[in-house]
Amino acid sequence: MKIIKGGITSPKGFLASSVSCGIKKSGRNDLALLFSESPGLCAGQFTVNRFRSGSVSLSQMRIKKGLSQAIIANSGNANACVGKREIKDAEIVTEKLAGILRLDRNKVLIASTGIIGKSLPVMKIKKKIPDLVKGLKKVNGTRFSKAIMTTDTVHKECSVSVRLGNKDIRIGGAAKGSGMICPKMATMLAFFTTDALIERHALESAFRESVAQSFNRITVDGDMSTNDTAIIFANGIAGNRRIKKGSPDYHKFLTALKFLSIQLAKKIVLDGEGATRFVEIVSKGARDAESAEKVARSVAVSSLVKTMIAGGDPNWGRIASSVGSSGVKVDKEKVEIYLGKKLVMKNGAGTKVPRNKLLDVFKKKEIDIVIDLKSGRHSAKIWTCDLTEDYVKINAGYST
Amino acid sequence: MKIIKGGITSPKGFLASSVSCGIKKSGRNDLALLFSESPGLCAGQFTVNRFRSGSVSLSQMRIKKGLSQAIIANSGNANACVGKREIKDAEIVTEKLAGILRLDRNKVLIASTGIIGKSLPVMKIKKKIPDLVKGLKKVNGTRFSKAIMTTDTVHKECSVSVRLGNKDIRIGGAAKGSGMICPKMATMLAFFTTDALIERHALESAFRESVAQSFNRITVDGDMSTNDTAIIFANGIAGNRRIKKGSPDYHKFLTALKFLSIQLAKKIVLDGEGATRFVEIVSKGARDAESAEKVARSVAVSSLVKTMIAGGDPNWGRIASSVGSSGVKVDKEKVEIYLGKKLVMKNGAGTKVPRNKLLDVFKKKEIDIVIDLKSGRHSAKIWTCDLTEDYVKINAGYST
Repeated sequence: MKIIKGGITSPKGFLASSVSCGIKKSGRNDLALLFSESPGLCAGQFTVNRFRSGSVSLSQMRIKKGLSQAIIANSGNANACVGKREIKDAEIVTEKLAGILRLDRNKVLIASTGIIGKSLPVMKIKKKIPDLVKGLKKVNGTRFSKAIMTTDTVHKECSVSVRLGNKDIRIGGAAKGSGMICPKMATMLAFFTTDALIERHALESAFRESVAQSFNRITVDGDMSTNDTAIIFANGIAGNRRIKKGSPDYHKFLTALKFLSIQLAKKIVLDGEGATRFVEIVSKGARDAESAEKVARSVAVSSLVKTMIAGGDPNWGRIASSVGSSGVKVDKEKVEIYLGKKLVMKNGAGTKVPRNKLLDVFKKKEIDIVIDLKSGRHSAKIWTCDLTEDYVKINAGYST
Repeated sequence: MKIIKGGITSPKGFLASSVSCGIKKSGRNDLALLFSESPGLCAGQFTVNRFRSGSVSLSQMRIKKGLSQAIIANSGNANACVGKREIKDAEIVTEKLAGILRLDRNKVLIASTGIIGKSLPVMKIKKKIPDLVKGLKKVNGTRFSKAIMTTDTVHKECSVSVRLGNKDIRIGGAAKGSGMICPKMATMLAFFTTDALIERHALESAFRESVAQSFNRITVDGDMSTNDTAIIFANGIAGNRRIKKGSPDYHKFLTALKFLSIQLAKKIVLDGEGATRFVEIVSKGARDAESAEKVARSVAVSSLVKTMIAGGDPNWGRIASSVGSSGVKVDKEKVEIYLGKKLVMKNGAGTKVPRNKLLDVFKKKEIDIVIDLKSGRHSAKIWTCDLTEDYVKINAGYST
C-alpha cells in the first residue's frame, strides 16, 4: 500500500465537480457531484436515526437495486424533518441529474447535510445541475471535498494505491464532519471510490468492517444524526483479477480501505467543533466486547473528562468516575488507568505521579487514555476530542 | 400540606451546625453536622457508581444495621478513588464524632463531596469535631445547607408541615448539586428530616418513590457520580399515630415528601453549572415506560439541544434528531413536538409557526419541551438546563 496524492478522483474513471447554488448564504460551493465513467458496484452504511433524511432513504433503496454511477451531495440543507416531500425532492433532484447524464435514475444517488426542518431548495439545485455536469473533471476531487463542508474548517481527503497481482488499484476518500465532539452530534458524510474489480459481497463486507473500525469508533449506532452516510463506489476499471472475499487480494484491499477510513475518521475528530485536542480512549482487559465498548464510550462522552482535557488539568478522578458509572461491573481494586502512558490509578487509588509530569501530557495535541479493567481479554478503542467554550459558542450561535 | 420556613431543622428534635476545617482553600465552611435528639429510622438512596466513595459505602452499611442519629457531611473532598483507606477514614471520622456525642458508632453516618482522588484530611476534620458538636443548634439548618455547597451558587433548603390526625408533622430538606447540567456530572447530596412517627417499611417506600420522581428525574441510575447520597431521618418526636404503608396518612406523607424532593431537585437544576435556563422535557404517548424514558433522556442529554436553548434559537430539528436517535422505534409520521406549548413539528415536518412566536419562548427562564409519540399511553419527565460557555469555563478551569 502506498499513500498517494488526491482523494475521490484518484482511482481511474472518477470525475468530480462542484458549484454554488445558493443554499449557503456565504455563497460558498454547496453542491457537489461525483461521477464514474462506467457504472459500478456500490455499498453504503447509513444513519439509523428514525428521522433520517429523505436523501438517505432514497440512496439506501437505490443501492439495493443494482449498479450506481453518480452521487450528488449538497451542504447547507439536510432534507430532513420536512415530511413526505423529502423523498420526492430527492427524487426530483436525482431525476434531473440522471436526465442530463443520460443514466437510469436508479444509478444516481444523493446525500445531504445541513439544517434540519427546511425543505430542500429544489429549484435552485435543478438550475445548477447542468453547470455541475459540465464541470466534471478528474482534477476536481478536492473541490468536491470542499463543497460538502459545513462547519468543517479543513477539507478532508486521502488516497492510496495497492498492488494486486500485476495491477495497481487505487482507493480514494473524502469526508466531512462537523460537531463531531460527541457521537450524537454530527452529520458525517464519507465517500469512497475505487477502480478495483471486486465481488459485491466482498465489497460490502470490506466496507462494513472498515466503517465499523473507523467512523463507528467516533459515532454510536442508534445515536446518529439524521443524515450520516458512508458510500463506496467500485467501478472495476483497474482490470485486476476480481477480488474475492477471503482471498489474499481481499485482505490487501481491506487493509487499505480500513487505513483510509481511519485516516478520514481521525481527521473528522481533529476538526471537531471547537476541538483543540485529539483523544484516544482504549479500554482493555474487559470480560467481553460489550463491556469494553461501554467503558470506552462512557469515558469518551463524559463532559467532565472532555472539559478536563480542554483545561489541561490531570484530574484522573473524572476518568475513574466515568468508568465507574459506565454500567459495567468493574472491579474497583483491579482497574488501572493511564493518562498519556503514565499510570495514574491502581488498586482503587492514585499512584502519586508528580503533577508536573502529568501536566506534560497536555503539552501534546494528542492525548491517550487507557483503562485496563484487568478482568479479561476484550478491548475497545474510541476517538474523541475535548469540549471547549468554542464548541458551545459555535452551537449556541448557530441560527436557523 | 403547608410550606414553612427553614430546612432540615424545622422538624422537632433536629439540630445542625457547621464549621470550617480547612478542606476548602477559600476558608468557607466545609464541615457540617445534622443531629437528632433521639435515634430514629433512616432510609437512603445512593450512587451505584463502582468507584463510589468510602463515605457512601460506610453509610450504606450502617443504615442497614438499625437506627441512626447523626450525619457528618464534608465538602471539598469526595473521599473517593483513594483505595482501601476510604472506608477506614470514614470510620475514623465517624468514630471520633460518635465518641463526643456518646453514641454507638453505627448510629453515625457520613457523606462527602468534592475532589476525587485525594485522601480525606482526617486530622483536620477530627480536630474540628468538638467545635462542630458544640455548635449544634436548632437555628443552624441554613448554615448546614451552606456548608455542603461546592460550585453551587445558592444554598437549597425547604420544609413543609402536614396535618396528620390531630398532630402536625414536619418534613425538612437540604440539598447540593453542582455540575448537574447532565445526568452524569454532579455529586448530589440531599438530606431530609421528619419528626413523623413512621414504620420502617413505609419510610423506605415513600423515600424510594420520592427520589425516583425527583432526583432520579435529573440523574441516571448507573450513571451517577461517586458520591451521590440522599438520606432521610425520621425521629418520631411529633407523636402522631405511626404511619403505616398504604394508609391515608401515608399518602399525605408521601405527597409532602415528593413535593419537597421535587422542589430541591428543581433547585439543583436551576443552579446547574453555567445554567441560564431550566428545561422540562416530557415524552408522552409512548408504547411503554422504557421508551418514554429513553426519548426524554435522549433529548435531555443532547448537547445540541442544550446549546440551542442557551443560544435561544428555536431549532426544533435538533430535538427531532435526538428523538430519532434515542433507539426507540418512533413513528416519524406520528410524532408531535411542542416547544414552549407551541406545536413545532407534526407529520414529520415543521408546522410553520412564525419564527418570532418561537423566539418568544426563550424570553422565559423555563422552557418546556413536549414530545408526543402518539403510539401509546406511557410518559416520562426529565428536568435539565442549558449548556453554556460558562459550563465549560467552570469545568475546564477546575484545578486539582
